[in-house]
This record gives sequence, structure tokens and C-alpha cells, in this order.
Amino acid sequence: MHVTVWNEYRHELSEEKVRAVYPEGIHQQIASFIETPEISVGTATLDEAEHGLTTDVLAKTDVLIWWGHMAHDEVKDEIVERVYQRVLDGMGLIVLHSGHFSKIFRKLMGTSCDLKWREDGQHARIWNVNPAHPIADGISDCIELEQEEMYGEHFDIPAPDELVFVSWFPKGEVFRSGVTYHRGNGRIFYFQPGHETYPSYYNQEVQKVIQNAVRWCAPKNSRPRVYGHFQPLED
Amino acid sequence: MHVTVWNEYRHELSEEKVRAVYPEGIHQQIASFIETPEISVGTATLDEAEHGLTTDVLAKTDVLIWWGHMAHDEVKDEIVERVYQRVLDGMGLIVLHSGHFSKIFRKLMGTSCDLKWREDGQHARIWNVNPAHPIADGISDCIELEQEEMYGEHFDIPAPDELVFVSWFPKGEVFRSGVTYHRGNGRIFYFQPGHETYPSYYNQEVQKVIQNAVRWCAPKNSRPRVYGHFQPLED
Amino acid sequence: MHVTVWNEYRHELSEEKVRAVYPEGIHQQIASFIETPEISVGTATLDEAEHGLTTDVLAKTDVLIWWGHMAHDEVKDEIVERVYQRVLDGMGLIVLHSGHFSKIFRKLMGTSCDLKWREDGQHARIWNVNPAHPIADGISDCIELEQEEMYGEHFDIPAPDELVFVSWFPKGEVFRSGVTYHRGNGRIFYFQPGHETYPSYYNQEVQKVIQNAVRWCAPKNSRPRVYGHFQPLED
Amino acid sequence: MHVTVWNEYRHELSEEKVRAVYPEGIHQQIASFIETPEISVGTATLDEAEHGLTTDVLAKTDVLIWWGHMAHDEVKDEIVERVYQRVLDGMGLIVLHSGHFSKIFRKLMGTSCDLKWREDGQHARIWNVNPAHPIADGISDCIELEQEEMYGEHFDIPAPDELVFVSWFPKGEVFRSGVTYHRGNGRIFYFQPGHETYPSYYNQEVQKVIQNAVRWCAPKNSRPRVYGHFQPLED
Repeated sequence: MHVTVWNEYRHELSEEKVRAVYPEGIHQQIASFIETPEISVGTATLDEAEHGLTTDVLAKTDVLIWWGHMAHDEVKDEIVERVYQRVLDGMGLIVLHSGHFSKIFRKLMGTSCDLKWREDGQHARIWNVNPAHPIADGISDCIELEQEEMYGEHFDIPAPDELVFVSWFPKGEVFRSGVTYHRGNGRIFYFQPGHETYPSYYNQEVQKVIQNAVRWCAPKNSRPRVYGHFQPLED
Repeated sequence: MHVTVWNEYRHELSEEKVRAVYPEGIHQQIASFIETPEISVGTATLDEAEHGLTTDVLAKTDVLIWWGHMAHDEVKDEIVERVYQRVLDGMGLIVLHSGHFSKIFRKLMGTSCDLKWREDGQHARIWNVNPAHPIADGISDCIELEQEEMYGEHFDIPAPDELVFVSWFPKGEVFRSGVTYHRGNGRIFYFQPGHETYPSYYNQEVQKVIQNAVRWCAPKNSRPRVYGHFQPLED
Repeated sequence: MHVTVWNEYRHELSEEKVRAVYPEGIHQQIASFIETPEISVGTATLDEAEHGLTTDVLAKTDVLIWWGHMAHDEVKDEIVERVYQRVLDGMGLIVLHSGHFSKIFRKLMGTSCDLKWREDGQHARIWNVNPAHPIADGISDCIELEQEEMYGEHFDIPAPDELVFVSWFPKGEVFRSGVTYHRGNGRIFYFQPGHETYPSYYNQEVQKVIQNAVRWCAPKNSRPRVYGHFQPLED
Repeated sequence: MHVTVWNEYRHELSEEKVRAVYPEGIHQQIASFIETPEISVGTATLDEAEHGLTTDVLAKTDVLIWWGHMAHDEVKDEIVERVYQRVLDGMGLIVLHSGHFSKIFRKLMGTSCDLKWREDGQHARIWNVNPAHPIADGISDCIELEQEEMYGEHFDIPAPDELVFVSWFPKGEVFRSGVTYHRGNGRIFYFQPGHETYPSYYNQEVQKVIQNAVRWCAPKNSRPRVYGHFQPLED
């Protein structure tokens, strides 16, 4: 299996505070806990040619992980369309944190994907509301994060196929923070943690969730779909 | 439309603290805000004959509201079966608060319906996560309750047909507090507020939710279902 | 309540066979069975200015019904975007038959919306698999149509919020023919019948389904959503 | 992983016609295509002590497969309760064909599980409506069975968590023939094929579906759930 971790990779280059947390970039930290003998991992970033998402790269990618924030609008529509078609064809997609506002996530959802937010350095609790789900495999009742950006309801997404996690924030908000979708042959998981100034991707349970999600999103051996004009099966 | 409000009606008789909040019983308070020129309301309680749920009462009931807590086990299986059949036949059912552990709710859900709880007099926030749902009609982003018992995840229910509300509690918990189900021709809504020592059923938004739910649960003009051996439709 | 029936209105002008079935256009036939003392109905067509969907028309429309087929690509992106925003703001949308491939439906779904099809003049059966759903109110076990175009699975849509109807076609196919979705504050219903050369919109049960869907899709009294930076609710 | 295949095992002993298809019993045929180096398989039948489902057998069973038909009522309530608790604790359950009316399936569903049926020796088509689902892994657009009992809608089940297959029958019916549920920590799959006088369990795609379902239903490494009175997490 091959995973590509896409990162906007701007905060890390321009903000010391972010670089202090993710000196090699968020993508390298995520890659570090995804890679195994069975899973090869590549990375791609916004400022590479074609944002690093060439046709070749996408063709060999089984699961794409997406982190973006300040430059969603700089992602070219042509590349968004390319990723979109690959998802419909079966590539898994994991959208993290501020990626909720990425072009690709909004295109797949068909909604604004808007929410409430507050960057206040508070802690957070991620409650496991679907304990038998493969993405919650080995995850405890509640993941505690020392610091995370608040994301609050209403989260303007379609009703998830499956709700896996709901987050609690100390100043009064809740958030559907782990949700799954199918689009075409592609499987999608959105997961809330990962503000660029907090060390969420060093948390072992967050890592475990993303590792589980990679396996859950990986393409099945889907047989080609038949569409269009169709001959009768019966006489 | 005819609504029957069923209440265990034990706490109010034995505890001064509860009687202070609901002097006529929880059922009378609920009845008071359900009744309209179009909606007649009756009540029934555990210690009446057949728990007040005779075949005649149920036959004319369009929506049954259920509040129980300390005496779930005293509800006779025969009456539970009678209510169950009426739900499958199309009667709406609204289960409130500690009714999550009632025999009828567990029978309809097929799970333990267990949860975490703490009676600590804290406040609560009920977030509206499905703003276009009829049960959320006219409800704001967040209903604030000055006091409510904490109910926390994991709530051992089947994945709801629709998730309408998620509650936040100040000591760290979240809860899927407004959920819908279909069973047979019957529509079911579970709603968390209503601990017997707190005045939740005097809250106008809580009242509005239950009023909306009565309309949502009301039986449709379902045509009789055909089951069993079936003659071919085609030659 | 105000309903706008949008029709591409090309087949009827160019094909005698279609005009024979719908001499005033499909939109007029649909309008005729939607209008009641409580529901006013307007129509709009592709070749009107702004496709008849001006900002004013949409602003007063509670539910938009959409029929299109041969000219999906001629619908301007600007108008699609306008309709899309109104749906997210709460306008109901009923997409009929070949409208599955309309820009607006695909944008809201986030998938290709592709399917199998065959125009063979055969009959069809629409099975009611959700008898307690308001859209199935008063609908029998099975709606029989003397002629309908075959649409077959796989239908490339997201998992519906609710599956209401599944169709059977005599040459071997099935189709999820009545499905609901929420997007933002908007409620959406897709319904399969309505090929331009067959008289499906004269069928009384088809009419009843669309009448029911108009009520189901009608905007609720949704309170404004709050998004963006959010002040703490707790001290 | 350990799978237990439970079979009523009455038809095979009393009817020559059934024995001709399944000389060793339906359970042995199912066991034969489930067993692999990684999956050990045992069987259990109604007329064994405790129906073969002792506490020990269930304790070591990861996935239970259930086939029953003529003697649902002879399954003791005590054993049903034991299986039910194991499902809530995480054991997977695959219910086949006429098992729709088994006590255990009805208890987990909370509905009558009734349907239409006709034993007419006709063929059937099982359409794959969820091609990216793990249970549909490697399955083509449509599984064709030369003979299968007709099961028709309305199937009185709760809305499935996921709809994977919809069947077509030549005399006019459709059926949601592959559906998934979660109950507690347990994962459940119902699959329609398998009338005792037809050779459906020799069909390679039917076998593949059940093999996939075994993997899908297998317990995850669910951490123990915490229920009941709960200490505050916050100060």
C-alpha cells in the first residue's frame, strides 16, 4: 500500500512557533508514524510542481492524507479535479483539521463545511462513540489532548455515513470530530485534531486513529462499475 | 391527534425534593405544554391498572411519551409487548431522559442502552447539529439548561437514523442527546433532558423540542403492509 | 408556501412524441398537481433570462423542483451556484428523473451520479421500503407504472440519509429510486420516474409522492447558524 | 480467528430433497469455504446440548454464522440471551436467509423482521449497491443465482447502517438482501441467499461475500466500555 501525505507547508516555513512543533513539516511527522514495512509513504506540498500531485503520483496512491489551512485558494482547480476523480475511482482520502475548508473536501461533501473555531490553547477530549468501528480499534473511551484548537457545531457537513468521534471543549462546545463517507468507490475520513501550533500528531492515540483510518480507507478490490446504456439481462 | 404521557410517578410521591419541582407529577407538566386545540392529551402511570395502558388507551394513542426511572422492572412484560406492537403498527414514541433504560426502549433498540451518568447539579448545553430537522424547528444553536444530570458517551444505542442534538457537560462529557429511529411503522425520538429534581420541562426550548417531536412522531397514513406468502405480480 | 417548477423545456418543443404527452410542458403538468390553496406555484425554464431563476424568484421559492435532460451543460454555473446557496440556506429541492445528471444535483452530492439506463417502453414497479416516511404517506406497497425508462444500479450517489423507494424493472435491474439528503439547511429528495415520453406525471401515486415531498422539503424555521470565530461560553 | 457455524439441521435430516443439495448439512458446506489457515471453524446445531452454543464455545467464537428456519421457536431463550450478550460484547454475527425470523436477529433488530416470500424455483440477481464496501470486495456488479427463494419488500428491519446488496426477482419483487448493523461492540451482517433446496452456498460469489463478511464482522480490539456512575474529568 502507498500513502501520500499532502501538506500545504507554509506555516512551518513562515512561523517560528509552528516550526518549533513540526521542524520538518506536518507532513514529515505524519509520514513518520504511517510508514511500516507494508505501507510506503511519500509526501507532496503546495509549492511543488502540480502541488506534488502529478497524475503518476496519484495513480500509485492508495490513500491520500490532506492537511491545508491558509492557502486553500491556491490549490489549482485542475489538481482538485484530478484528486476528486481518483477518490471516485477508489483512492482513500483522510482530511485533517483545517482541511475541512479545502476545495477537495467541500467538493466531495457538497456543503460549506463551515464551523465555529477558537485558537485558545485549551485542552480537548475526543469521545469514542462507535467503539466497534475499525477506525476506533484499540482506542480508549476518550482521547485527551493537552491543547487543541476548538472546532464547534454546527459543522456544516452532510450526515456522516458513520460518526466515530465527538469532541468536547472546555469552554462549552462539542464537535463531530471523526466522520466517515463514501463517494463513488472512495472512502473518506475526516478527523479534527491537528492545529499547527499544538503537538497533536505526536499523541499516540491520534496516531493510532490515523493509522487505523489508512487501513479503513484503503481501496478494496472493487470491480469496474458499468454505467450508461445497458442491454437487457432478461429475454 | 391524541397523545398519552406515561410517567412512572413514584419520585414525586416519595420525595419532597421532586414534588417541589413537579407537584402534579412530571406527566402533568409535560401534558400542559403538549395540549393544543388540535392535540388532546391523556396521562397514564405505573400504579394504575395495566399501568394505565389498556388496549383501548393505546389504540387511540397517536404518540406515547415515556418517562420512567426507579421502577423499570415493575413494568409488566405483557404491557411492554402491547406498547411494542403498537409502535410497530405506527404509534409514535418519545422516550425521555432515564427512559433510556426502560424495557420498551431497550426492546426497540436491541442494545443495552447503557451510558455514564452523574447527578451533580451542573448546567448543560444541548447543541443543535441538524438544524433543518423538523424536531429542531425554531431551536437555536444551543439550548442552555441551568441544571441537568450528566449523561455521557459511550451511549450504547444503535447508530441513530438521524442525530439531532449533542449535549455538552461542564465536567468533560458529551452525549448524543436527541436521536431518531424508525421501527416498523413507528417513529421514535429519544431526548435526554428531564432529571426529576431539575426543572428542565419548564424550559421553553425543551418544550418546543418535545412539541416538534410529537408532530414528527405522529403516525403517517401508512397503508397496510403485506407480508408472508405472496403471489407473483408478473406472468 | 411557494414552489417553483423548473423544466429544461426542450424536448416538448422539438419532439412531437413528447409534446403528445406533455403539450404544455412537463413543468405545467407538475405545477397542476402541486398547486393548492396553501401552495402557490410558479414555473421557470432554461431559455428564459437567467433560466427563470432570478435572485428574486429564488428568494421567494420554498421548494424548487428540477427536471432537465438534454441540456444540462447549458445551465450557467452562476445560476447553479445561486441555486446551491439557496439550498444550503434552506430551500427544499426535488430532483426528478434525468435531473440526476444536472449540475446542481452533482454539486450537492459530490459524486458522478452516474447509472445504467435503457429506454425500452417497459413497465416498472416502485417498492415502498420506508412506509412510515412522510414522503410515503398514503402510498401503497408498490406503485406500478405502465411505462418508465429503466434506471439501474450502481447509482453513484452518496449513501442516502433515508431510502424511501426501490424500483424493479422487468429486464433485470433494481434502482434506489426515492432518496433523501440534507445539505446545509436544505432538504433534498430525488425521485426516479418521469421520462419525457411516458405519462408518469399523470400517475396519481407519483403525484402523491411529489406532493408529499414538497411538504417534506419545505424549509423549517431554522434559526440562523453561527459560524467562524466564536467567543467562549464558559468563563 | 475462530468462526462457529450454527445450523438448525432439521431439513437435511428429514427431507431427501434438501439432503441431496447439502448431504453433510448446510453448516458443513458453509464451514468448508470459511476455513483457511488463519480461520478455524467449528459447527453447532439445534439438537446438540445447549444447541451447541455453550458458554465456552461462544467465548472463543469471534464470528457466529446463523442458519435457521423451521424451528426458530425451539431455540431456548436462555441461549438466545447468551448469544445476544456475546454480540454486544463484540462477537460478529452473520445471519443467513430464513434466519431473518430467528429469535436472535429479531431481538437485535427490535422489529418483526417480516417480509414477503415465495418458493418458486426462479432465478435471482443480487445487485451490488455499495461497491467500495469491504463486504463487496471483489464482487461484480450483479451476482446471478440460478435459483433462489423470493424474499420481497417491505422487509421490516431498522434502516441498515449500510446497504450493500439489493436483490431482483423475476416475478416483480426487490429486497434489501445485504445489510449491516452495529449493536454494542458487535457487528452484524444479514445476507439473503440460502434456501435449503437451492445450491446457493456453492456459488462462488455468495461464498466470497460470506468470507468478506467474516472479516468485516470480526471483533476489533475494542477497549472496555465504562458505564454507570462516573467521576468528573474536570476540576
